[in-house]
Amino acid sequence: MHVLTVSTAARNQFVDITREVADAVRAHGLRDGACLVYVPHTTCGLTINENADPDVPADVLAHLSAVIPRRAEFRHGEGNSDAHIKSSLTGCSALVPVRDGALALGTWQAIFLCEFDGPRTRRVQIQCLAEPEGRGA
Amino acid sequence: MHVLTVSTAARNQFVDITREVADAVRAHGLRDGACLVYVPHTTCGLTINENADPDVPADVLAHLSAVIPRRAEFRHGEGNSDAHIKSSLTGCSALVPVRDGALALGTWQAIFLCEFDGPRTRRVQIQCLAEPEGRGA
Amino acid sequence: MHVLTVSTAARNQFVDITREVADAVRAHGLRDGACLVYVPHTTCGLTINENADPDVPADVLAHLSAVIPRRAEFRHGEGNSDAHIKSSLTGCSALVPVRDGALALGTWQAIFLCEFDGPRTRRVQIQCLAEPEGRGA
Repeated sequence: MHVLTVSTAARNQFVDITREVADAVRAHGLRDGACLVYVPHTTCGLTINENADPDVPADVLAHLSAVIPRRAEFRHGEGNSDAHIKSSLTGCSALVPVRDGALALGTWQAIFLCEFDGPRTRRVQIQCLAEPEGRGA
Repeated sequence: MHVLTVSTAARNQFVDITREVADAVRAHGLRDGACLVYVPHTTCGLTINENADPDVPADVLAHLSAVIPRRAEFRHGEGNSDAHIKSSLTGCSALVPVRDGALALGTWQAIFLCEFDGPRTRRVQIQCLAEPEGRGA
Repeated sequence: MHVLTVSTAARNQFVDITREVADAVRAHGLRDGACLVYVPHTTCGLTINENADPDVPADVLAHLSAVIPRRAEFRHGEGNSDAHIKSSLTGCSALVPVRDGALALGTWQAIFLCEFDGPRTRRVQIQCLAEPEGRGA
């Protein structure tokens, strides 16, 4: 398992980690299978979306914050229940197919770490998974 | 990796692709493990839900469109930010356990491609994943 | 594949199943890879979030029920469309990395079965997935 460290700069922020994940898969040497990207945190998440236009992740973040305001009538005393809720909606993992040693992402897809309670230093665990033996492509 | 092509007929539509995924797993020959179903797109998604009553996927779609209107104050210039947001909420993948060569779905579960910006032609990547050697059932 | 049985006690309830999943992985003997946790149901889900303070899952549940009321103008005749929608938002699976025979969860992470239409008896399917041969840690 490979571990990345990502430093975030705002309370809410999407950080494109596609290149780091692709590098980890290449270093691992996996040819065909899948790559599990996982954040061991409960106030951030992971999502796959477009990065060609930075307005796309901005719109996704703005929607989440509009629907899940920070100061609602939450019970959790730390004041970051909005971040926990956003984390459950995006999920804390992404699973990307790997083909011929590369991430089989779509043309416009990027992998984002979704910071919902930053700025913080986050860890990203990357675990390669195998396809069955003797079953190429 | 097997690739399906799915043509959608409306801007928002759930298309049941369960049979095609099951056929791909059968053709692959995987006995036990899991099947990753993945769309390499950023304005559609994948979800698992009930298909016995077509009102269920209709209600899920109607809810998403009510909460995420097309014409909100989005920044992305293409006018389809709602589709990107819906994609991040459903996710662009589904992972289904495989047992004895068949998808281990529940009685009422179906795998849906979620079109949020159609009509379009979409690709679905299907990647089988292995369970550890010497560990049956 | 290992199957757990979980009895829920309310219509909406998060049940921490972390220990049961960890026990299943230990019994299986997987050293490194991932563990797919999957519910074969369409009115419940799975999520990973904090369990140190029970107010966190309570806030996540309260948010979902506020945004997705039970009695909206749904078409599905069984009166539980809210549960189906919540299931598509959380998803019906969680994929957790496994390292050195243990779930590689974060300090505060727990795996929750999300009951949205209980009380019921639910099944949880646990499928271990392998990392490629000859590729430790």
